[in-house]
Amino acid sequence: MSARIHYKNLGKSGLRVSMVGLGTWVTFGAQTSDETAEEILTLAYESGINFFDTAEVYAAGKDIDIVDCKGDVTWSKGIHFADQLAMRAEIVLGNILQKKQWRRSSYIVSSKIYWGGKAETEKGLSRKHIIEGLKGSLERLQLEYVDIVFANKPDVHTPMEETVRAFTHVINQGWAMYWGTSRWSPTDIMEAYSVARQFNLIPPVAEQTEYHLFQREKVELQMPELYHKIGIGTVIWSPLASGILTGKYDDGIPIHSRAALKGYSWLKDKILSEEGRRQQGKLREVAEVADRIGCSLSQLAIAWCLKNENVNCVLLGASNVDQLYENIQAVQYISKLTPNIMHELDRLLGNKPKANRRDNVSR
Amino acid sequence: MSARIHYKNLGKSGLRVSMVGLGTWVTFGAQTSDETAEEILTLAYESGINFFDTAEVYAAGKDIDIVDCKGDVTWSKGIHFADQLAMRAEIVLGNILQKKQWRRSSYIVSSKIYWGGKAETEKGLSRKHIIEGLKGSLERLQLEYVDIVFANKPDVHTPMEETVRAFTHVINQGWAMYWGTSRWSPTDIMEAYSVARQFNLIPPVAEQTEYHLFQREKVELQMPELYHKIGIGTVIWSPLASGILTGKYDDGIPIHSRAALKGYSWLKDKILSEEGRRQQGKLREVAEVADRIGCSLSQLAIAWCLKNENVNCVLLGASNVDQLYENIQAVQYISKLTPNIMHELDRLLGNKPKANRRDNVSR
Amino acid sequence: MSARIHYKNLGKSGLRVSMVGLGTWVTFGAQTSDETAEEILTLAYESGINFFDTAEVYAAGKDIDIVDCKGDVTWSKGIHFADQLAMRAEIVLGNILQKKQWRRSSYIVSSKIYWGGKAETEKGLSRKHIIEGLKGSLERLQLEYVDIVFANKPDVHTPMEETVRAFTHVINQGWAMYWGTSRWSPTDIMEAYSVARQFNLIPPVAEQTEYHLFQREKVELQMPELYHKIGIGTVIWSPLASGILTGKYDDGIPIHSRAALKGYSWLKDKILSEEGRRQQGKLREVAEVADRIGCSLSQLAIAWCLKNENVNCVLLGASNVDQLYENIQAVQYISKLTPNIMHELDRLLGNKPKANRRDNVSR
Amino acid sequence: MSARIHYKNLGKSGLRVSMVGLGTWVTFGAQTSDETAEEILTLAYESGINFFDTAEVYAAGKDIDIVDCKGDVTWSKGIHFADQLAMRAEIVLGNILQKKQWRRSSYIVSSKIYWGGKAETEKGLSRKHIIEGLKGSLERLQLEYVDIVFANKPDVHTPMEETVRAFTHVINQGWAMYWGTSRWSPTDIMEAYSVARQFNLIPPVAEQTEYHLFQREKVELQMPELYHKIGIGTVIWSPLASGILTGKYDDGIPIHSRAALKGYSWLKDKILSEEGRRQQGKLREVAEVADRIGCSLSQLAIAWCLKNENVNCVLLGASNVDQLYENIQAVQYISKLTPNIMHELDRLLGNKPKANRRDNVSR
Repeated sequence: MSARIHYKNLGKSGLRVSMVGLGTWVTFGAQTSDETAEEILTLAYESGINFFDTAEVYAAGKDIDIVDCKGDVTWSKGIHFADQLAMRAEIVLGNILQKKQWRRSSYIVSSKIYWGGKAETEKGLSRKHIIEGLKGSLERLQLEYVDIVFANKPDVHTPMEETVRAFTHVINQGWAMYWGTSRWSPTDIMEAYSVARQFNLIPPVAEQTEYHLFQREKVELQMPELYHKIGIGTVIWSPLASGILTGKYDDGIPIHSRAALKGYSWLKDKILSEEGRRQQGKLREVAEVADRIGCSLSQLAIAWCLKNENVNCVLLGASNVDQLYENIQAVQYISKLTPNIMHELDRLLGNKPKANRRDNVSR
Repeated sequence: MSARIHYKNLGKSGLRVSMVGLGTWVTFGAQTSDETAEEILTLAYESGINFFDTAEVYAAGKDIDIVDCKGDVTWSKGIHFADQLAMRAEIVLGNILQKKQWRRSSYIVSSKIYWGGKAETEKGLSRKHIIEGLKGSLERLQLEYVDIVFANKPDVHTPMEETVRAFTHVINQGWAMYWGTSRWSPTDIMEAYSVARQFNLIPPVAEQTEYHLFQREKVELQMPELYHKIGIGTVIWSPLASGILTGKYDDGIPIHSRAALKGYSWLKDKILSEEGRRQQGKLREVAEVADRIGCSLSQLAIAWCLKNENVNCVLLGASNVDQLYENIQAVQYISKLTPNIMHELDRLLGNKPKANRRDNVSR
Repeated sequence: MSARIHYKNLGKSGLRVSMVGLGTWVTFGAQTSDETAEEILTLAYESGINFFDTAEVYAAGKDIDIVDCKGDVTWSKGIHFADQLAMRAEIVLGNILQKKQWRRSSYIVSSKIYWGGKAETEKGLSRKHIIEGLKGSLERLQLEYVDIVFANKPDVHTPMEETVRAFTHVINQGWAMYWGTSRWSPTDIMEAYSVARQFNLIPPVAEQTEYHLFQREKVELQMPELYHKIGIGTVIWSPLASGILTGKYDDGIPIHSRAALKGYSWLKDKILSEEGRRQQGKLREVAEVADRIGCSLSQLAIAWCLKNENVNCVLLGASNVDQLYENIQAVQYISKLTPNIMHELDRLLGNKPKANRRDNVSR
Repeated sequence: MSARIHYKNLGKSGLRVSMVGLGTWVTFGAQTSDETAEEILTLAYESGINFFDTAEVYAAGKDIDIVDCKGDVTWSKGIHFADQLAMRAEIVLGNILQKKQWRRSSYIVSSKIYWGGKAETEKGLSRKHIIEGLKGSLERLQLEYVDIVFANKPDVHTPMEETVRAFTHVINQGWAMYWGTSRWSPTDIMEAYSVARQFNLIPPVAEQTEYHLFQREKVELQMPELYHKIGIGTVIWSPLASGILTGKYDDGIPIHSRAALKGYSWLKDKILSEEGRRQQGKLREVAEVADRIGCSLSQLAIAWCLKNENVNCVLLGASNVDQLYENIQAVQYISKLTPNIMHELDRLLGNKPKANRRDNVSR
């Protein structure tokens, strides 16, 4: 049985993305050697994956935890291992693309802008940083343009008009084809759309957000409304909840796992919390369902994300080829997630989000 | 010690509303005699309340439960007590205003449009119904205009452009000064704003929504964002959770209480549910806090709503003068709700809403 | 078995129209007495029909064939019987509505503007005639507003901007809720939409057009595209092809039939043409299908129109109550038109329209 | 007697195109040697033809029939002769233009975008493919810009706003002077115009479409309306119906004719169909008319297209110089197509399109 990658339009845009994409942000240049990165990217491309996601990350500093950029740890915590990782993901990806010489039109590269450096002017969604940040990414990627540039976070200190004008500018300059958002609230996204309509600028096409068995509300309740109203697509990351859904933390924190790393104490704390232990219990039951279907827990978790019709693309991370191969195979199991199985999982998890009845009476 | 009513701008509009308003919808013409209604309105006006809220309700039929208009019970449930209430609230309010001859410029009347009759064309937010519904309300109220016309619910079957154009039309005709929404999601409200900006129409000024000790998320998390982004004000109803927060259901359903009425079985069910019983338990602890402050449980519950700076106006219902008087006194106790007390209440209730941490990193 | 009238939104607008409407244009004031007209309208309203369509017609002249307004006979043909009919339909409808005192919000009245009189300035879609024509209709109808005002024909001699501005004006004046088109090409309709978008005016909501077993192309091929692109609804008239589909011309022109009337020589010619005779042959086969289903040929023809999901409302004419009653019963037979039966009819008729293959490659 | 090429504005644009243009798409790089191609282009240019049309075609694959790009055959049919043609037309044209060094300002080059490669992202009218596709064409053509870039087909899966923004972008970048459509329905074209007007973007200037003695409706009925309303010009291809109108299939399929080629089975089928045989019969009568006028059947067919005043340019293909020379001579015979002859042809063909009489009453 072999995995067959399908393609979907990203939101209501004309861009056709593979249902599975490759997130290179955390792994490339950090957890993998350059050779492994090349093997991973090659497997992805040859499997039909056409979407490679990366991000600008803090470049020159010494005291910023790269993980902060993803989690919610405060900005200046001072952990000293990120300086080896800095900027590496884009450079590694750029080098591989340069070497492989695949037709530029056959794949999609996205990057994310927010944290570009230590200086005051090197972060956020000001016109200055959007332009300078994207140019930095393009240089590291050795590309003329990215396909999608994402705002990696909302910036409450920059007026939305400035941000939307800046994204429209970089698109008009030819440095990006589309722009999107990441970790924005529906109201943030609607504001961007509204500003775009008011000033005849270019609206965003997609939101990139976290989605997995234990975090469902935004993708299941709010994103469909945004799709129907203004055509926003959904790209999701962390389908395995930073590894929690692989089941490897079932007996605690293995010594070489990510949660044991210095910069990931937030993950360790999460796993060892009361809520974390409760989730491990549920995972054991989910694993039984996976057994019955004949796939691994990770594969089930990924297939479950892919099953959601509103999700356009699930970004997979991988630190080696075998892991990516296994995770791609998840697409085979989507059809096994029958309504009965989905219902059983909802029951097990007990977290199917519900719209507020009295607030949304007729929906 | 006497209650002093303060005034706030409604959202970022220029309209100054009293922090406490009078909701006449459920009570006037139904639970109160016309004489009592007059006494209530007079007390309100003389206490400094300048905001009287009402709604169109089903007019000519016999078999519609007025409660349906508020909840999500299906339209044709066939409970036969609403026909006595029908249209009465607006008529009673209009008669009193006519009689009292207060200066029209000294008070604010709002009505709500959605359910106007039994015919297919007499409900929803089509242009036809917004215009005809509001004209019907004005006739019953004997007014030339209302100050605010609210959409009582979102209407997914009418394009937002049609709805916003119709509200702009009735404002341009002079039949309303402002328009607002009720029970709309933030995304609905943002869409209305976006359409208004795109077509140079008039955006809404306020959302009217439920808020009380047991329902907090929308008002505490989402409304501030709407206020900051697009100036939407917040008017809240049901500060006492349909009477639950008066403490009167502590020992079950008293025979003459609202929850014992025929049309209110949903309320009875809610009170007697497991969740309802758990809430009664917490209420006993909240009542102890009220005792310490020296006010009634109801007063504490109202003062707690008023304490929220993002709330522009709390609508009180009242079926007699004493009840209104007591509830107005709640404003005295706002200052007693010190940070310590608020923190204690949060701990007791255990329902302080939190933004998704990873999705709103820097907030 | 009793007919149950359902309701649909008119295009993507919020207006809910009954799937069957009453066309009063040809019959009221002409083929029926005022008493019969009242009986017909009452039966319609009580059956759940909420949509009454009429039209302005030439008022004061002596030498205009009213039928010309509907057919394509040239304007000044000089047949002298229309002066008895002139303006009568709107007056008769207005008198009945006045007498019955149904709630204005419970029904929909539409009129059509194009031919308003003999003078040069009394026809077409100039600002002058749209305003004066509609005001004349409102006066005859004794109404403050119509729900929909239709342009009865495109007017190539008036710039589209003028026409769309004028319809927007009468809506903003409160004389109409919506505007629509009748017998406009898709390109005409798209031009109106485009002008509305360019100048922020109000776009049309529906096209009123001919549709029946022998005329299918526009409704089946073109209207769906207009619905999907810009939300235009479809109201259809002549579901019985001016009576041809009743089967009454099977043996020639009966002496009291419409085709025997002086003004209807175009209809007589059509029936007696080679094409007409071929159609009579097919009708005999269609009648056999009707027999099998257990309904009349007329009922089958109407049900067949109603079966088309893109049709929002089928306008029925009737010159007596029995005829209307029979035709309303057609709604019972919609469910009998199974895919097999529909396929059989397509085969019998041999006129199922097909999109040009090479021009619309991927559709 | 010598042929005199005249010039017309393309639609209501300012671009002056020769009434006859050269289509290089099917022939250059495929049916002709590079030397012949140069001779053909030179003859064209020296005869006064200033319009050379080409198209991007599938570039790197092995199993795509180039004919598929034109017809509606599915994408992956697996005929193996297109790989010799792939991209060749543009390269051959580019090489000749490079060699001849005619002033760039003295001629017009157009290309068409839709099918650019095998990857999901390499086809359609997404922003990504319009930009990448056009850049690829420019590279192959060795040009800085094309004069007109056509959308080779509508793309229902991409929002019109995205497509119109992308064409506006490539014009603003200087990569094209104008944009047009090909094989779009009038409603598609009106939608593009409407979106351009709504967002202040650049509307299309012309539609490129099939037109010949046996396919008349779109060009004769619909294009004039588009010209009058929004200035859309008409460029036509296939004036000889893929060779059918040369008369060479009168006795079946000659062994070296196009219809005998592997990729053209659709053409063979068409010719041998019942409809095809009926057309051959009519052609014999048309050939007699040609005899009377003194020209060949092909020349008559081309002159007949040129006679239509709404046609701005007729694209001729040619696989050798003599053929082009003969076809250019067709312009001499336009004046011989008197009203009587045109009427005779209409009678012979029996396919003069008629607007729906009742739907377009006054036209």
